[in-house]
Amino acid sequence: MPPPIAKAIHFGPFLVTSQVFHTTPFSFALVNLKPLLPGHVLICPHRSTPRLSQLTAAEIADLFQTVQLVSRTLTRVYGASALNISVQDGADAGQSVAHVHAHIIPRRAGDEGGGDRVYDMMEGEQGDVGRAQRELEEYRARARPRFPKLDEGSRRARSESEMRKEAEWLKGEMEKDARERRGGNV
Amino acid sequence: MPPPIAKAIHFGPFLVTSQVFHTTPFSFALVNLKPLLPGHVLICPHRSTPRLSQLTAAEIADLFQTVQLVSRTLTRVYGASALNISVQDGADAGQSVAHVHAHIIPRRAGDEGGGDRVYDMMEGEQGDVGRAQRELEEYRARARPRFPKLDEGSRRARSESEMRKEAEWLKGEMEKDARERRGGNV
Repeated sequence: MPPPIAKAIHFGPFLVTSQVFHTTPFSFALVNLKPLLPGHVLICPHRSTPRLSQLTAAEIADLFQTVQLVSRTLTRVYGASALNISVQDGADAGQSVAHVHAHIIPRRAGDEGGGDRVYDMMEGEQGDVGRAQRELEEYRARARPRFPKLDEGSRRARSESEMRKEAEWLKGEMEKDARERRGGNV
Repeated sequence: MPPPIAKAIHFGPFLVTSQVFHTTPFSFALVNLKPLLPGHVLICPHRSTPRLSQLTAAEIADLFQTVQLVSRTLTRVYGASALNISVQDGADAGQSVAHVHAHIIPRRAGDEGGGDRVYDMMEGEQGDVGRAQRELEEYRARARPRFPKLDEGSRRARSESEMRKEAEWLKGEMEKDARERRGGNV
């Protein structure tokens, strides 16, 4: 029997189902195509709307309770001593996908994000999550081209499978922490 | 009769009662001593604890519902088209006061925070909220010195009174929005 088909999850216009590692009634967490630092993930409401002000009180509560929950697992598995949590609320604040998303970036003393570099990266080209997702869509559209560029094709494909692997790993780690909170030892 | 004495509110070790413009059961909002851009404020839980992971689910929900509520008023009164919302969760993420605080920075197209400058400023010396508060405490400790430096004294004093004025103005604007939400026209 084939595995159950996961409900398709979109981040703005982008299909991100394979990047998602945690879902709640109102929110989902996805790994980044191009993380700025290891463990850089995004937390989004299921409802695709650009601005924080458009979320209901329940959506806001669930979104940041999910940020907290995911932060705990990221802290453990990435050995983080701190985290940057950031919402670019609107295009003029640097938002590149018009769907509310909170960045969580695990930090350690002396890492590459030191000083303000983590923000430089987030605001720069490498932190443009919209651009990265568009590139993935383009790759997918080219997935059965007549004459694929093998180099680029294989680089991208590996990136997508790595991403899926990271999402599955984090999903397992989130479940491990959830079992521990319930006091179980399954 | 003297006005009722407001409950003292602390942000980390600092007394910030006169900077506070909004309180909820779990959170408070304060104006910044040295805003990076006009309308830059901080939202904190009443309970002074350094990390987001230490807050209860109710505290997290209230904190970010307050971020949303304050954001709406800031957007209106500062004519903002976007907002940066950011938590430096731990010292290695740039946190300068060990008491959870979410920065809200109103943004407009073409403002001084463009690109990554708003983050440069936040991470730099001018964004060090701890340092700014320490300087204010030092000023207060010198408030009745034998030979005050008049220049510095008057500059600081004006800054504190401006801050109090801004807090009172924002308090009024928050109340105006609250009345509107209730549909009243008091």
